Amino acid sequence: MKQKNGKEKIPHKDVISRDPFSGSKKMYVSGTLHDIRVGMRDIDVSNTLGNGSGSASITVYDTSGPYTDPDTDIDVLKGLYPLRDKWIKGREDVEQLDDFSSEFSKKSAKNGNGITFKNLRKPLKAAKGSNVSQMHYAKKGIVTAEMEYIAIRENQQIDKLKEQYKELAAYHPGEKFGAEMPNSCITPEFVRDEVACGRAIIPNNINHPESEPMIIGRNFLVKINANIGNSAVTSSIEEEVEKSVWACRWGADTVMDLSTGDNIHETREWIIRNSPVPIGTVPIYQALEKVGGKAEELSWEIFRDTLIEQAEQGVDYFTIHAGVLLRYIPLTAGRLTGIVSRGGSIMAKWCLSHHKESFLYTYFPQMCEIMKDYDIAFSLGDGLRPGCIADANDAAQFAELKTIGELTKIAWDNDVQVMIEGPGHIPMHMIKENMDKQLEYCDEAPFYTLGPLTTDIAPGYDHITSAIGAAMIGWYGTAMLCYVTPKEHLGLPNKEDVKEGVIAYKIAAHAADLAKGHPTAQFRDNVLSKSRFEFRWEDQFNLSLDPDTAKQYHDETLPSPNAKVAHFCSMCGPKFCSMNITQEVRDYAREHNLEDIDAIEEGMKDKSEEFSNSGGEIYLEPAE
Amino acid sequence: MKQKNGKEKIPHKDVISRDPFSGSKKMYVSGTLHDIRVGMRDIDVSNTLGNGSGSASITVYDTSGPYTDPDTDIDVLKGLYPLRDKWIKGREDVEQLDDFSSEFSKKSAKNGNGITFKNLRKPLKAAKGSNVSQMHYAKKGIVTAEMEYIAIRENQQIDKLKEQYKELAAYHPGEKFGAEMPNSCITPEFVRDEVACGRAIIPNNINHPESEPMIIGRNFLVKINANIGNSAVTSSIEEEVEKSVWACRWGADTVMDLSTGDNIHETREWIIRNSPVPIGTVPIYQALEKVGGKAEELSWEIFRDTLIEQAEQGVDYFTIHAGVLLRYIPLTAGRLTGIVSRGGSIMAKWCLSHHKESFLYTYFPQMCEIMKDYDIAFSLGDGLRPGCIADANDAAQFAELKTIGELTKIAWDNDVQVMIEGPGHIPMHMIKENMDKQLEYCDEAPFYTLGPLTTDIAPGYDHITSAIGAAMIGWYGTAMLCYVTPKEHLGLPNKEDVKEGVIAYKIAAHAADLAKGHPTAQFRDNVLSKSRFEFRWEDQFNLSLDPDTAKQYHDETLPSPNAKVAHFCSMCGPKFCSMNITQEVRDYAREHNLEDIDAIEEGMKDKSEEFSNSGGEIYLEPAE
Repeated sequence: MKQKNGKEKIPHKDVISRDPFSGSKKMYVSGTLHDIRVGMRDIDVSNTLGNGSGSASITVYDTSGPYTDPDTDIDVLKGLYPLRDKWIKGREDVEQLDDFSSEFSKKSAKNGNGITFKNLRKPLKAAKGSNVSQMHYAKKGIVTAEMEYIAIRENQQIDKLKEQYKELAAYHPGEKFGAEMPNSCITPEFVRDEVACGRAIIPNNINHPESEPMIIGRNFLVKINANIGNSAVTSSIEEEVEKSVWACRWGADTVMDLSTGDNIHETREWIIRNSPVPIGTVPIYQALEKVGGKAEELSWEIFRDTLIEQAEQGVDYFTIHAGVLLRYIPLTAGRLTGIVSRGGSIMAKWCLSHHKESFLYTYFPQMCEIMKDYDIAFSLGDGLRPGCIADANDAAQFAELKTIGELTKIAWDNDVQVMIEGPGHIPMHMIKENMDKQLEYCDEAPFYTLGPLTTDIAPGYDHITSAIGAAMIGWYGTAMLCYVTPKEHLGLPNKEDVKEGVIAYKIAAHAADLAKGHPTAQFRDNVLSKSRFEFRWEDQFNLSLDPDTAKQYHDETLPSPNAKVAHFCSMCGPKFCSMNITQEVRDYAREHNLEDIDAIEEGMKDKSEEFSNSGGEIYLEPAE
Repeated sequence: MKQKNGKEKIPHKDVISRDPFSGSKKMYVSGTLHDIRVGMRDIDVSNTLGNGSGSASITVYDTSGPYTDPDTDIDVLKGLYPLRDKWIKGREDVEQLDDFSSEFSKKSAKNGNGITFKNLRKPLKAAKGSNVSQMHYAKKGIVTAEMEYIAIRENQQIDKLKEQYKELAAYHPGEKFGAEMPNSCITPEFVRDEVACGRAIIPNNINHPESEPMIIGRNFLVKINANIGNSAVTSSIEEEVEKSVWACRWGADTVMDLSTGDNIHETREWIIRNSPVPIGTVPIYQALEKVGGKAEELSWEIFRDTLIEQAEQGVDYFTIHAGVLLRYIPLTAGRLTGIVSRGGSIMAKWCLSHHKESFLYTYFPQMCEIMKDYDIAFSLGDGLRPGCIADANDAAQFAELKTIGELTKIAWDNDVQVMIEGPGHIPMHMIKENMDKQLEYCDEAPFYTLGPLTTDIAPGYDHITSAIGAAMIGWYGTAMLCYVTPKEHLGLPNKEDVKEGVIAYKIAAHAADLAKGHPTAQFRDNVLSKSRFEFRWEDQFNLSLDPDTAKQYHDETLPSPNAKVAHFCSMCGPKFCSMNITQEVRDYAREHNLEDIDAIEEGMKDKSEEFSNSGGEIYLEPAE
């Protein structure tokens, strides 16, 4: 909340959660092509994999950035260390500007209203005639540091881990629906190839050197995005920065700042400077603020200045609703809930009032020029997405998608990276059609969907209604899932809601990875399940998506340290623990050579009495 | 928790939540064949459907029983009114016993330890030579009161509502995967037919006359079950009764009492006497208690007495792990997590130690005799279900399913109702195989699955990991979904966890109904979405699965009564409300006859200037 005197509250130095994850430490893997080190989370599982003796650990993908590395100094007032600065400048195709190019930015930098981020860098821009997009490099055959970073990051050292822990290496092959991820290590060259053909994007503005490279594409791990941002009626800069870092902590791969309230520019600056993940925005929101909320007064000039303003701050991808064409608007007339995208409704209003195609559509080639100067990716917005089950998969929605597909090709002709936004509210049986049409119309450009929500009747639980759809569409091939929080349709999420949304979507993304048969995915499930079966409670907590909550739930009924080594839990108590009984069954079978059917048929009869005699009470007593 | 002095706590008179749902009242629809009245929840939506003038309401399925009817006297010490008593006795095929038949029950009734439920009725049993199962009546062509009740209940008056509110009647046809629900009203005859062929069951023990008839089958609404019950280390009778009624309030269609702790018999009595929904149990748990936890000491005689004990208390369905055969046990040896079903592991241990098939298998025909004396349904348990992703769909699992299919036919030969339990932990792409094999092996007997959980890595959030799988398998044809709470794998659920689990599963079940194209399902989504689009906040809350939470979330940021009629919410604030802007776009189009593409092409150019002139600030100011 804003401070009582009405003044905006900027972040306090100690506001950010920096505790390392329970049982984990930050570790780094070095590159071989480039001088890079890729941060990962190393989870101690000595109990499970080392069988209590010696050390054992597994590495997992980590979006929390330097915050969980206690050896890193972090000052929210100064921003994160610019990890990619050297790589960007080392390519010698950028120039540093003396001042911001946007009129609005110049004004903002001067106004000094006490909420401005102080540690501003001078903006970078492509040198004249250059294109600094990763797609451009990829097409030229260049494997950038970003690409090698991503290859290492996606692999999570899986080959080494599977070699080390062979008994846990097996995984279900999955159903890929045409996705083609390698069965072994992802190479930097594979990353390059996927970016070159447009099947994956690396959103990383040269003015956001603090971000750790990541990739969005259906042949990689499914990613998730968390939306944050204030509105005219709620929240402060401090809260938004805190939410942004908090979202990364729990697994957000990118963050969109959807602020529509006061001080949009300043809020964004604070967020970007402190964000280890790419930041996306919807520039039309700020442009609309600049014309006092009157959609019909928007113009290409105002919008263009806004794009450059945000480009030089370091926004990594822009949602652009360029597919809302004039002739599609009447297609929404029969809908139950009309146009539910903010950007879509703004552009529809503009189109109608001017009776022409929007400047987002007509100036699309000019936008590409800006995007390639900073390496910003398009996220082509689905302004006509359905806002309820009744409106799913209708003519308006798919007409727009087709237009978006055409724009994708224009962007690619300019070597500009593109992903495509998708719905929305879709019943389960109609989800796959969205994926199929997107692949067809947009030539396999990465799909980035909001949910979809699979029913309208559960406001307050739309993280769940949508996690169902998100998991499914992720399986079908969606590359990034935009989270939905429990507050969807009701209010802006607070910090706790952000976490709920992120965890629900990490579940959806991981379930999708498993169903696709991603070669790194099932290993973590296997390690966790082994620790569960062996009653290694601490390992089970630490391996879970949210160790804090898992531990807290366990401790609600069995808080004593003894219970952490007990061979049962409060669900069944000691007598009814199936895993416990299974161990006994196995021990018996092993002792009596009864591990296959033949042996059991032949040898068991005479052994049975012996077992009965040796039996008795094998259960442990509850720990006090 | 138990009282500090160690004594069991029995329910207090006022412990049960009895508030009617927000904006709703209980209403009853009468039968035409039988003298019955079917309770439903009537939600006031005057604002949405009556457009503010006159009254309008919609009816929805209601599992909360008489508790939400303020005109009903309820005393937890006496139990609910025996709704079905007249119907059961009216069929003149039962006899009332002078005393309980089970030795254990006789002892329990006498021990008077202060926790016994006082208002015991004398048990009913089929008269000699009779079979009182609904399947038996159905096969003979008899449409029972229960069947008519169910037909009315499933319909939710949808034909009347769709006639009344035609503009909201449309729905997506769905993908049915072979399910065949009628497109119009479900008739009592249809119910009879589905029960006769075994495709649906009506679990309703003649000794649980308090329960409101409901049906489980894939041509009906997808149902959900909530598990409650204490263990040796936690919970009291009072808590379990409270959880049971609480689960029904939020939508549980059946409740399983999985108690394994002290006073199993007494706890169950209290639960059944106060439950408006069918109650299921796993009798082997209590039998194991009776032999001091030593699986190998279990016998048919002890088990049989337990079945009869529970039958005469009124348990509506029994989980019986009769498919765990000796030769299947070695098939679990290579598993990562072995046997994770309590019942399965107990029977595996019994089989191994006796080296013969379990009494559940060998005495299956004798069990059928008991089941038909009381009309108890089999829920054939999947004792070898997979407990982790790695073990999904393995040989052990499907071998057992095949055996269960054979047992199904034996039950049907005895006119005993059967449903089949299913897994477990299954990655998304392997879920459908479970459904397909179940339909094939078990001749379309209703499938009743636990989740399935689609990943192992999120303890603390397994209501979500499993709601994903539950929604999908419900769509594919599963008739009832057994909920999973956030505490799964970590501890026993408290009241709040029960609600979280129930709501997650109501979402999954409803999402499945929508995807199957169930003719009653989408109407509620349509009504809610219309109220959302029209900013009828109170209607939106009341139509949702959890009005309390929806309202609370909304009010966190905009608590004033004015905000309940505001044309925006705190998500976007007034300027960025897409629904608001869409209304303007529509108003404009309507005024200018621009509701189709031709009109827009022809007429819009000259109108555009006019709109710009008439434009200006159309947004509402935020309510204070």
